[in-house]
Amino acid sequence: MRTLKNHPELCAVNTATFGFQAPLTKVIDEVARAGFGAIAPWRREIEGQDVKALSKQIRDAGLKVTGYCRSEYFTGSTKIARKAAMKANAKALDGAAELNAAYFALVVGTGRNLNLVRQQVEDGVAELLEHAREVGVKLAVEPLHPVYAADRACINTIAQALALCQRIEGKVKKPMLGLLVDCYHVWWDPALESSIAAAGNRILGFHVSDWLMPVRDVLNDRGMMGDGIIDLPYIRELVEKAGYNSFVEVEIFSSENWWKRPMDETCRVMRERLFTRV
Amino acid sequence: MRTLKNHPELCAVNTATFGFQAPLTKVIDEVARAGFGAIAPWRREIEGQDVKALSKQIRDAGLKVTGYCRSEYFTGSTKIARKAAMKANAKALDGAAELNAAYFALVVGTGRNLNLVRQQVEDGVAELLEHAREVGVKLAVEPLHPVYAADRACINTIAQALALCQRIEGKVKKPMLGLLVDCYHVWWDPALESSIAAAGNRILGFHVSDWLMPVRDVLNDRGMMGDGIIDLPYIRELVEKAGYNSFVEVEIFSSENWWKRPMDETCRVMRERLFTRV
Repeated sequence: MRTLKNHPELCAVNTATFGFQAPLTKVIDEVARAGFGAIAPWRREIEGQDVKALSKQIRDAGLKVTGYCRSEYFTGSTKIARKAAMKANAKALDGAAELNAAYFALVVGTGRNLNLVRQQVEDGVAELLEHAREVGVKLAVEPLHPVYAADRACINTIAQALALCQRIEGKVKKPMLGLLVDCYHVWWDPALESSIAAAGNRILGFHVSDWLMPVRDVLNDRGMMGDGIIDLPYIRELVEKAGYNSFVEVEIFSSENWWKRPMDETCRVMRERLFTRV
Repeated sequence: MRTLKNHPELCAVNTATFGFQAPLTKVIDEVARAGFGAIAPWRREIEGQDVKALSKQIRDAGLKVTGYCRSEYFTGSTKIARKAAMKANAKALDGAAELNAAYFALVVGTGRNLNLVRQQVEDGVAELLEHAREVGVKLAVEPLHPVYAADRACINTIAQALALCQRIEGKVKKPMLGLLVDCYHVWWDPALESSIAAAGNRILGFHVSDWLMPVRDVLNDRGMMGDGIIDLPYIRELVEKAGYNSFVEVEIFSSENWWKRPMDETCRVMRERLFTRV
């Protein structure tokens, strides 16, 4: 396993961690100043802006872009809604290409009839993959914790995401379709070890945060690494054993705590925790 | 699939659904008056009481006992704590036998090191099974929704519970060790169909309630069948196809809604929803 201690350049910051309290231009400066190696911006920070200029600022600051966050749901209740989402996703992929993002993150959506919406997701991802190939940006399906299966994603385990990738793309040496391993979403999985090993080079991104106890708000009360119960070093070891050697990315949704703190404070604590608790 | 309409005798009520607002003697009367076929009491209603008399009252009211709720966790942080839990579980099994319960429900506990606590659970269940055989009461492992993996149970899928049963008991015609399928806990599972089919005669109980949206409190805000997003008839069909032909049991933890209503009202609504939405 790699040593993170004193290697912030191996780590990335997802801008959601700051709660969008400042424009991306400032966030980029802050993340670069703290020595991190990469950043993951959101569409709300990019769309309608001068993307070329932002992309240049990121590059000039010495940062890479990991994931571009995130897709529209593939599971709208009407064909028209699903078409509109596909169009927005295709446009977002162009943005991801402009940013030189390693991948475009897919949060897939869900619905009451799980078998139906899972098929919609499969069809939508397969279609989007064609455009992804054209613009040269990988797609990363993010399995979300099953607590979000009712309102955000019908893909809830690594094994399920991997099976989806394999059905769509088949066996290939250099996959354009892969998945994200976010510890917050997958730590509980009884098949964690075998599914991470099987996912191998389909693992395009690795996210860390922590699961606080007691759970107050499953959406916006994620914890800083070390403040909760997830055995993060154990999961990082699994992922790196499976061949992952890209950035360790912090993504913390925390409306009542971290989003209220100054960005430099959050950066300082992230560094320390990445060094010692991940 | 069986018809539940006008067949409340195929249905059971878990007493937690009333929020323990009345002594068990009154609850038994209420459940019997509504025409239900069975009841699932909790240890807090039984221990320290005249169990023989309660058992007789239940039988005289024409009710069966499905599950006796529930075990202590098998995952205490010290050996002494785990021994004490085993002792309490053995004693509870004696109560289950006195009540002629179809099974004793196991909520297994959890901890930070999942591999460690899963082994503790396996050791504890294997040990308890010996006493269960002696007193003739089956053990039903309850996989809980992964949102409880941090604080209540490290067994979170049917497949995981089934594998545990098979490792402990091997392949047997008449298993003494099985599992509970609670729709609230398992509805999201991408392997739901195959794991229910595989579980077959290890399915000792079937619980219904509903997953409300938005989620306010994952512990005590469960919904009445039909008020949420779970496709209950679909899951019941899977379970019955797998061979399950025992009671459909309602268990609703709902501190802010159903627990505040009179028992006869809750019974009336349960009947109606069991007839039409399950």
